Amino acid sequence: MAFEVTILGNSSASPTLNRHPSGQYISICDHHMLIDCGEGTQMQLQRYKIKKSKLSHIFISHVHGDHILGLPGLLLSMNLMKHEQPVHVYGPKELFEILDTFFKHSETDFTFPLHYIALDPNASEIVLENLYFRVKSFPLFHRVPTIGYLFEERFTLKKLNVDQCQKLKVPFTHFNDIKMGKDYVTPEGKTIRNEELTFPSTQPISYAYCSDTIFDERVIQSIEDVDYLYHEATFMHDKLDRAIKTMHTTAKQAGIVAKKAKANQLIIGHFSSRYEDLTLLLDEAKSEFPLTQLAIEGTTFILE
Amino acid sequence: MAFEVTILGNSSASPTLNRHPSGQYISICDHHMLIDCGEGTQMQLQRYKIKKSKLSHIFISHVHGDHILGLPGLLLSMNLMKHEQPVHVYGPKELFEILDTFFKHSETDFTFPLHYIALDPNASEIVLENLYFRVKSFPLFHRVPTIGYLFEERFTLKKLNVDQCQKLKVPFTHFNDIKMGKDYVTPEGKTIRNEELTFPSTQPISYAYCSDTIFDERVIQSIEDVDYLYHEATFMHDKLDRAIKTMHTTAKQAGIVAKKAKANQLIIGHFSSRYEDLTLLLDEAKSEFPLTQLAIEGTTFILE
Repeated sequence: MAFEVTILGNSSASPTLNRHPSGQYISICDHHMLIDCGEGTQMQLQRYKIKKSKLSHIFISHVHGDHILGLPGLLLSMNLMKHEQPVHVYGPKELFEILDTFFKHSETDFTFPLHYIALDPNASEIVLENLYFRVKSFPLFHRVPTIGYLFEERFTLKKLNVDQCQKLKVPFTHFNDIKMGKDYVTPEGKTIRNEELTFPSTQPISYAYCSDTIFDERVIQSIEDVDYLYHEATFMHDKLDRAIKTMHTTAKQAGIVAKKAKANQLIIGHFSSRYEDLTLLLDEAKSEFPLTQLAIEGTTFILE
Repeated sequence: MAFEVTILGNSSASPTLNRHPSGQYISICDHHMLIDCGEGTQMQLQRYKIKKSKLSHIFISHVHGDHILGLPGLLLSMNLMKHEQPVHVYGPKELFEILDTFFKHSETDFTFPLHYIALDPNASEIVLENLYFRVKSFPLFHRVPTIGYLFEERFTLKKLNVDQCQKLKVPFTHFNDIKMGKDYVTPEGKTIRNEELTFPSTQPISYAYCSDTIFDERVIQSIEDVDYLYHEATFMHDKLDRAIKTMHTTAKQAGIVAKKAKANQLIIGHFSSRYEDLTLLLDEAKSEFPLTQLAIEGTTFILE
């Protein structure tokens, strides 16, 4: 079951020509989602050939401009395309007052059901759950109410042993059931055990999104043992004063969070526009947590 | 006196990778302004090396997303740069409720005086006037209250005859006065007439911005005899029904407006993303008004 994260923006508040404000595209088993939606996200989706028509769930961390100012335009463009499927937007309640004020005055009638789900930024709760994965919210610690999101696969489809299925004459109409873990019963009533028809499952994967937040150990309990941790790393550690004042994290601190949370891998982003050479931030995070990568725009991380 | 218009966006509501939503940078005699500010305008300013720190006046036509969704982000970026000079934003009153709702929830404190000037979309009035130019608003006819803007030079500086000034020993500290049309009086009390020290002035230039609007002859009285007319041309004339339904103009109609208004030149923009080949729109407008150009992004029109 594919679990992929594509980086649409890795800049903090001031974008540059090559670095856009926050946005990530998440795909889990044919569910297509966004986390945050900074200005220009709809163009970034075009650039990386991701169809906005597939998006069904949009998770917003907080209402600072670099995390939300692309959302009204994205929804308007979906509307102009006569999108029909429901779109669910999750975020702090303030987000919906901002959207409503704009959509009221721009006199927008949506062609699709647009559902707002206001989350409690102080709570940890399951906000979306289906057969394949769940999404939990948890508190981050920033200048305005801010929410982190944890995506957890619940279950991974098994990989079919096609040769074995053909040999045992299993009709392809049963393949989905078998990938889900079911045994196959022949027309003659004989049960073929699932293990004979599949390769072993991979382990379910988890992904946590932490942006924006000051370094605060309370975050760690929400993301303990996560497989992939995306964490903001706005500044180098020599700008710790600035990080504290603006309630952001340094690259070194992002590494410490990953280490303390016993994450498997760390991806850092939300870089201040003052850093042209991002390897400085990477090296600093790696000094605490070697398995760190940069959230380079256009990169798709295949989580496995 | 330089009067320049740079096209930042020429797309209608759905942007493409190469065509951005509406935005124009206007420079008149060291006054730096914007008309409309669609999503991505701050990045377009960077792309075309226009300093946002110079902007002092921003004129918004209406509150559809493709005309305003870049404005909060632009103002936030100016704020992060610790901009200090006042910024004046003009537009329909609904704009300011949208901005205020966002700035309230994002808890933004501005480092510079941000002045809102709510305009009556049904009135024609002078909204800005100084020694060099004036800006008039006028009604357009769209689905929400929409304002056109007419920029008129009041006065053009004279070009100094430097050789003559040197020959007559005019101190350079008097050059600005002479460019403004004043005579020079020597220390001995002799008056040298301005005509001896300058070349003749050029004629003051006017520029009108008409986007978005249905074809409506009432617009013509507001822009009569304008030198340069920017007019939206969202559709080809074979989509007249769609233009009427959405209250937009066809390329042919834009040409007719220019002709009836006795404009000198026409610039068309706000193109539907369905048109990859813009020369089709250009040719259609030219069939009514030969002196038509396309608003190609990054083009600076030097109005003279």
